[in-house]
Amino acid sequence: MTQNLTQKLLASHLVSGELTPGTDITIAVDQILIEDATGTMTAMQFEMLGVESVAVPLAVMYVDHNVLQIDDKNMQDHHYLRTFSARYGLRYSPAGHGISHYIHLEHFARPGGVLVGADSHTSTAGALGMFALGAGGLEVAVAMAGYGFDFVCPAVVGVELTGELGSITEAKDVVLELLRRHDVRGGRGKVFEFHGDGVASLTVSARATICNMIIETGAATAVFPSDEQTRGWLRAQQREDEFTPLAADDGAAYDDVEQIDLSSLVPLVAVPHSPGNVVAVSELPRTEVVQVCVGSSVNSSYEDLATVAAILKGHTVHPAVQLTVTPGSRQILQTIIASGVYGDLMEAGARMLEPVCGPCVGIGQAPTAGQASLRTFNRNFPGRSGTAADSVYLCSPSTAAASALEGAIVDASTVSLGELRPAAAPNPGVHDVHIAGVLPASVRSGIEIERGPNLVPPPQPEPLPADLDAPVLIVVGDDISTGDMAPDGAIAMSVWSNIEACARFMFNRLDPQFHDRARTEGGGVIVGGENYGQGSSREHAALIPLFLGIRLVAARSYARIHRRNLIAAGIVPALIAADADAAVGQRWMIEGLREAVANGATSVTATADGGTPVTLTLDFSPGERAVLAAGGLLSHVRSGGRPLPAQTDAHAS
Amino acid sequence: MTQNLTQKLLASHLVSGELTPGTDITIAVDQILIEDATGTMTAMQFEMLGVESVAVPLAVMYVDHNVLQIDDKNMQDHHYLRTFSARYGLRYSPAGHGISHYIHLEHFARPGGVLVGADSHTSTAGALGMFALGAGGLEVAVAMAGYGFDFVCPAVVGVELTGELGSITEAKDVVLELLRRHDVRGGRGKVFEFHGDGVASLTVSARATICNMIIETGAATAVFPSDEQTRGWLRAQQREDEFTPLAADDGAAYDDVEQIDLSSLVPLVAVPHSPGNVVAVSELPRTEVVQVCVGSSVNSSYEDLATVAAILKGHTVHPAVQLTVTPGSRQILQTIIASGVYGDLMEAGARMLEPVCGPCVGIGQAPTAGQASLRTFNRNFPGRSGTAADSVYLCSPSTAAASALEGAIVDASTVSLGELRPAAAPNPGVHDVHIAGVLPASVRSGIEIERGPNLVPPPQPEPLPADLDAPVLIVVGDDISTGDMAPDGAIAMSVWSNIEACARFMFNRLDPQFHDRARTEGGGVIVGGENYGQGSSREHAALIPLFLGIRLVAARSYARIHRRNLIAAGIVPALIAADADAAVGQRWMIEGLREAVANGATSVTATADGGTPVTLTLDFSPGERAVLAAGGLLSHVRSGGRPLPAQTDAHAS
Repeated sequence: MTQNLTQKLLASHLVSGELTPGTDITIAVDQILIEDATGTMTAMQFEMLGVESVAVPLAVMYVDHNVLQIDDKNMQDHHYLRTFSARYGLRYSPAGHGISHYIHLEHFARPGGVLVGADSHTSTAGALGMFALGAGGLEVAVAMAGYGFDFVCPAVVGVELTGELGSITEAKDVVLELLRRHDVRGGRGKVFEFHGDGVASLTVSARATICNMIIETGAATAVFPSDEQTRGWLRAQQREDEFTPLAADDGAAYDDVEQIDLSSLVPLVAVPHSPGNVVAVSELPRTEVVQVCVGSSVNSSYEDLATVAAILKGHTVHPAVQLTVTPGSRQILQTIIASGVYGDLMEAGARMLEPVCGPCVGIGQAPTAGQASLRTFNRNFPGRSGTAADSVYLCSPSTAAASALEGAIVDASTVSLGELRPAAAPNPGVHDVHIAGVLPASVRSGIEIERGPNLVPPPQPEPLPADLDAPVLIVVGDDISTGDMAPDGAIAMSVWSNIEACARFMFNRLDPQFHDRARTEGGGVIVGGENYGQGSSREHAALIPLFLGIRLVAARSYARIHRRNLIAAGIVPALIAADADAAVGQRWMIEGLREAVANGATSVTATADGGTPVTLTLDFSPGERAVLAAGGLLSHVRSGGRPLPAQTDAHAS
Repeated sequence: MTQNLTQKLLASHLVSGELTPGTDITIAVDQILIEDATGTMTAMQFEMLGVESVAVPLAVMYVDHNVLQIDDKNMQDHHYLRTFSARYGLRYSPAGHGISHYIHLEHFARPGGVLVGADSHTSTAGALGMFALGAGGLEVAVAMAGYGFDFVCPAVVGVELTGELGSITEAKDVVLELLRRHDVRGGRGKVFEFHGDGVASLTVSARATICNMIIETGAATAVFPSDEQTRGWLRAQQREDEFTPLAADDGAAYDDVEQIDLSSLVPLVAVPHSPGNVVAVSELPRTEVVQVCVGSSVNSSYEDLATVAAILKGHTVHPAVQLTVTPGSRQILQTIIASGVYGDLMEAGARMLEPVCGPCVGIGQAPTAGQASLRTFNRNFPGRSGTAADSVYLCSPSTAAASALEGAIVDASTVSLGELRPAAAPNPGVHDVHIAGVLPASVRSGIEIERGPNLVPPPQPEPLPADLDAPVLIVVGDDISTGDMAPDGAIAMSVWSNIEACARFMFNRLDPQFHDRARTEGGGVIVGGENYGQGSSREHAALIPLFLGIRLVAARSYARIHRRNLIAAGIVPALIAADADAAVGQRWMIEGLREAVANGATSVTATADGGTPVTLTLDFSPGERAVLAAGGLLSHVRSGGRPLPAQTDAHAS
């Protein structure tokens, strides 16, 4: 029987379950990726599991988010993560070394492997033929402790690429085209698997751009074949021995199919405030910009920066525009210096920032309110830039460069494109020097972990109440992101190691009274719309409600990672109909909630004083019900509800 | 009659008064330097003067402080300053182009000129044989409007340099030696003028380091002769035509003299929490560091960074240490890239930040509380790093580099010093491209100035009350810096364009209730110790008290710039004896305060309920009394109290 590539990757790592979309499976995990923003909670919960050591072949901690250090909290986090990593056997990439996804691609990702990461854009490694999936911190901690990774088997969309990109279109336009087609919900429950004649022309960096941003469609991940481009990448990284050719079998079936003719694409832009609001640049009314930002985990490769430099060289950025450039890693920084790209960018007036996530998560470079900021990034959710009333547009590097010269959003058809400077050979050695290795176990056990006062272990759920009696605290609309629950930005993110402090920011943009009301009530219910909890994997968006005493969310639909984070935190993510009568101030009484969840009931009724009864659908897999019944994933694991699986051969490799 | 160099510079610019130390003089001003942090208040007050244009030959606005942009306020400031500069005829150096003092040295400073700047470290330009003085924003605005610059004629200390620096001592050790001798008060009322055989061996960058940090002694400024080093610097900057040889006449007299044998110096370090707490590195108990920061306006020249690179090359920074490097300007960034210094630093593990003030004023890179941070900067006042309970040490670049490898404070005798990489030729063109020029007057008048909501014009004083009846709000100790009044750091500095918002931070570290108490009382009196208001020129430290209704400060002595800022804001800086009975909660009644100040009385008596009467000395020049009587400098100028002076020939050049 023929298999597509996704099926091959999952089958080779399957520990339990069957590869039927929509059913629970457990897979063995080869590699774990953690970044600092989600990492402190991941690490503190890993410690609660009580294991002695990382139990996967490779785990890497990357410090790339909270590195501005506007007060002493960031550095407390760094000290904790560095000593935690040394103690438990993770490799550690320090602040300033680069963005996790780029470094992982350069130094660790390998065809055929499974990567689970505490960051939604972990999907980036799909560019090297990996199955790479973002997840919440606790789920990652459990996987890192050797329990494998549980998730719902996705459907596979086969995307056939034909033709080649034109002179002013880039990989970013490919993924923007998919967002134009699917918006931010169309990819849910799916893996996008690329194949076809057009694949060969896309470099690994280009593939990484597509795999990174695919998750904005709601998709689980994306994957490319491992081919000659892959081999070339690994050769340049001095690890060609890790190359394996991988592709779908001829004639393999997909759950769904679509096509993109690369040669027919035009430069696209996502307008505020959703990555799914995609239009052609040429159709946009003239939009003056005050800021252009190049970088982030989706677009800070050598090619991306060389493309920008080729357009800017010999010109000067428009005087009303601030242009910033963040390289993806120190390796990329080395190559842009050696090749002259860095000089071209600087001489044109770019502000060259260190290789970090930076402005992509509002950690610096917040723009003025209401004035357009054009960014090569992957998200433009309201406020993500660090400015509450921001106006952020997303585009490709060449569109960004042309716009920086023009002072308004234009595509690169308006400028002369110079030749790209050839890339200098990368120096993979930079990683070997800077990423701390794994110490011998005998040394590790003696390491004292530094815990500053900013490091506060997260709350632990009580068992789910037998009956729920709680007020509706807030009713929100569709596509609310986890950034509305645990906001981005240097100020809000500096307290991500302390859930009580984070809680003050929850839903601030939507309802500044939410936090105080929840505290006063001592708990309650959140009512959401479609795609509730889209975006980042930050489990703070679930741990804050838990801290506030919330044990039930009722939304029309959920984003994958956030839904799992709620379950892991012992909060019930129920479904509610569009026409349900739910309003703030109602008090909901649900008799037998715990029993219904535990025993497979498909619905419960909330009796709402001041309203008609509301039917809530309970759509959970057996595994999810077990976690909820146990009072969250940590209790479930610690009580033996999640046995250590037998490892597959693939895992042992 | 022979003259020293300071006398020559002042004499050639003298508009009124005589060169007698301690008396009022007015000098013509050739150049004005403004940076963004102090610049928004400077600019808003300039606008209140009602003039049409800058009335000095050159004025430059540099954006180098508030550039992290943790929310939308910084960029509002940038938009305001850019359009203000375009409207009134200042040149404009945008965010990321570099630190004001380095760019000014590279592109504008010239031997024989007078520079006044709204930044205490404006003294840096003394390295090129300029008389360069920091001042408060309103005084700078008045000078920029063509009124010349009023100040108290300083005494001149002749510092004879002999010998040459050794292999592990640097210019930083020269100025630390002067701080060891004079502490933070010994230089008050003085200019340090360097001469002697040892001068010729010091490069312009080395001289800039000394002139920059000299003001931590309380000095007005420092000045070096203009000689072959100066000529070489100007030649490299492609402006050798601006060279003039300048030196003290043979046998010129000084008000005081001292000597430094450069060859006898040892590596020095200033320990927390004062730049005057200087000891030899070799005498320091072992002090482990978690952070090393290289850069700032005192130590981010090509030589400084090349020295660090020569020590780090081929090694890796200690894993427990975070090393950051900020080049002084884009020109320096270009030269360190071209010469290979940048690569050496990065490969050793340095976090390469953009050329800004950055960590020196706590705008990013705040260290963990209580753990040692070693910095090549000029100040270690408590909290200046952005961390309230910080522990900051100040040192030379070579000491910083050796310590970054060791993980503890050591001097460079512990390491092998490689050869410095020769500097690549600088490219002065980078400034021409990025520093906006002055537009024709016809264009300027049509420019609309952008004023975001963060830009709030400062309060204006009412006339001084005839009698004062006010509570003592706080009694503080010696050497309180302006950073205790208007704190450094990305968070506090983001509101420096809004005095009401700034006011919430005043004296926070010393007494978190101060702001609320002052608001409740509607005014009051501040009682200070020796050297009250040392450090930065930020006039926020005077405008906040004005906003809070404070019209009298009683301190044992004052730092120069803050004292003048108080007077400019219409606040009386009286002197109080060490044994005066002053305590919080007393209510002071001063009959006839206004009359006493205006009419030359040398003291007043405060009748303190609950205490013995307190005698306050009124030690003011006639000009200062006129300003106070007018209700501050702005009223004084607008009412014609400060006539536009006839310009000198030097000024017209």
